[in-house]
Amino acid sequence: MRVGVIGGGQLARMMVPPAVELGIELRVLAESADSSARIAAAAVGDYRDAATVLAFAREVDVVTFDHEHVPQEVLAALVEAGVAVRPGPAALAVAQDKILMRRRLSAIGAPVPAWAELADAAALGAFLDAHGGAAVVKTPRGGYDGKGVRVVRDAHGADDWFEAGGPLLAEELVDFRRELAQLSARRPSGDLAVWPLVETVQRDGVCAEVTAPAPGLSIALLDQAAALAELVSAGLGVTGVLAIELFETRDGRLLVNELAMRPHNSGHWTIEGSATSQFEQHLRAVLDLPLGDTAPRSPWSVMVNVLGGPEGGMPARYPAALAAEPGVGFHSYGKEPRPGRKVGHVTAVGDDLDAVQGHARAAARFFQP
Amino acid sequence: MRVGVIGGGQLARMMVPPAVELGIELRVLAESADSSARIAAAAVGDYRDAATVLAFAREVDVVTFDHEHVPQEVLAALVEAGVAVRPGPAALAVAQDKILMRRRLSAIGAPVPAWAELADAAALGAFLDAHGGAAVVKTPRGGYDGKGVRVVRDAHGADDWFEAGGPLLAEELVDFRRELAQLSARRPSGDLAVWPLVETVQRDGVCAEVTAPAPGLSIALLDQAAALAELVSAGLGVTGVLAIELFETRDGRLLVNELAMRPHNSGHWTIEGSATSQFEQHLRAVLDLPLGDTAPRSPWSVMVNVLGGPEGGMPARYPAALAAEPGVGFHSYGKEPRPGRKVGHVTAVGDDLDAVQGHARAAARFFQP
Repeated sequence: MRVGVIGGGQLARMMVPPAVELGIELRVLAESADSSARIAAAAVGDYRDAATVLAFAREVDVVTFDHEHVPQEVLAALVEAGVAVRPGPAALAVAQDKILMRRRLSAIGAPVPAWAELADAAALGAFLDAHGGAAVVKTPRGGYDGKGVRVVRDAHGADDWFEAGGPLLAEELVDFRRELAQLSARRPSGDLAVWPLVETVQRDGVCAEVTAPAPGLSIALLDQAAALAELVSAGLGVTGVLAIELFETRDGRLLVNELAMRPHNSGHWTIEGSATSQFEQHLRAVLDLPLGDTAPRSPWSVMVNVLGGPEGGMPARYPAALAAEPGVGFHSYGKEPRPGRKVGHVTAVGDDLDAVQGHARAAARFFQP
Repeated sequence: MRVGVIGGGQLARMMVPPAVELGIELRVLAESADSSARIAAAAVGDYRDAATVLAFAREVDVVTFDHEHVPQEVLAALVEAGVAVRPGPAALAVAQDKILMRRRLSAIGAPVPAWAELADAAALGAFLDAHGGAAVVKTPRGGYDGKGVRVVRDAHGADDWFEAGGPLLAEELVDFRRELAQLSARRPSGDLAVWPLVETVQRDGVCAEVTAPAPGLSIALLDQAAALAELVSAGLGVTGVLAIELFETRDGRLLVNELAMRPHNSGHWTIEGSATSQFEQHLRAVLDLPLGDTAPRSPWSVMVNVLGGPEGGMPARYPAALAAEPGVGFHSYGKEPRPGRKVGHVTAVGDDLDAVQGHARAAARFFQP
């Protein structure tokens, strides 16, 4: 069993441990020789080049992804050549284009914020007038970690993006109580496994902390989120891990914010906190193997991202950090420190939420730049 | 931080996942291109050749081992060249020679079966006379998994081994209630971490099943085993993981059977069952990093070895096995199936020992040849 991963970031890297344990051969098409997933790199090449990707794909049983940026024409060439691509091009298209995402989510009846496709400043002005004078404007493609997203209160607040070409997406500014994320995994045969709903905290548009399960959940909300995972993954034909980023509104509704069709930052806690991690589950799912148990191993898990990181990387601080927090799981992605860059994370698990949060946050503080 | 592992077996392989998570670079000197630890292989070469091993060692910060077979003259050359070798040559010598092991254990006051170094059949006859007419005879070097071990009831029962040269070790045939194993890890600075005492079941001299913790333990026995870990690891100057295989006698004493100075089959359960696995702990210890928490994650863990394995390897049976046992951890070592060969293991964890045993054994049965 050989799985090919396009992209050598930390998500590909974190597929290595379960692949080694299960005896699955993982082969990565990496962007550079020093990619985060370099231990499993089978080739270094451009994922936008169909010939490169095809040559890579011929050596594996199934192709999956570290990111959503592989162009549709490359995906089409893979399918044409008989390669198993999971998730498939049609599903990935929805994760690649935020306007298409809103259109498809609306079509299958998933709850989304009010939205519109905007051609120009006049359309933005009309959207602002209709939605209380504020909107979240997004470029349909290429955004991540808060990039390509802007809160706008003026019809000319996105003129630079309009000038760069193409339509923009406008969404109502949701008055949310908090952000949640629903993680699931689906096999090609349709079986679905759902993890508990988690709470995510973003800072400057970047995931900072995840608590699993989200504290103070009602059974109704849990059920609604699990049903949404089923609706979206079946409705869009997703295979592998699907992360649904959600707003919990102040009046108790769930609205879909974003989708990711791969392991996701909101699921890193599953390495320590779940019987089956999202990385193992993704491998099982794309290989169409039976899915693993998603039950939590502990009542509470808290994951805190390490952004930027100290000179020398996280290991430079291990002598102090590991001594202070012997029960915490430390994860370093083998990336060069750079301001704001996700270079690792820490996870604490346990019975008492305050204590677990305390351990995770204390551990993460050792890695401040 | 770069750790070099000499030997590319499953123990080196299972160090890969924690190395990837911690961001430690693992480099393996493997016996062959298709070794179990091939994903981390930096070189293929002969561990008995000092020049090969030295060249390998120069690229890492510390050298450790997948097995105990590296000759003392090669270890001496490493130390001479300033390489950090953990465990060190003096400690490893004790794990390499069973007569030296008995001598050193006796010297530090560890409880061992009655033993003698035998020069010939006459000496064996005298030992048999003194110990009820039965003895366990062992070749001092090169034995493993029941090889080089024989129960003898006749003075000429080991003539073939005497003819092959060198002294033999004789031990009393211990009337044991069961076999136990005490796993620990020690940093060069002396800090020690101890896992709970486990019960091991051997079949034909090969580890078949491990239950953690050993059922029906008294606090006194637990304390005695933990104290023994401290005595042996400090007394012999061990760094890294130490496994002490023990007999629990029918009259309630512990006697040391064997030692291993590396991660050990009796500790595979720690991957799922402990806050820190033996493989992560070994890396921490040989890097002289603070040790992790050894608390169990579940009341019970049961590990069952997969010996031989089906044609096509364990993954060939995953469709049925993973469907039947979604909560079990599956581990395949990427080795060719061969009768009796350790090709993988499975681990179940949970609150109810009978259920956990049932899941682990049921999962293992899917991989019968």
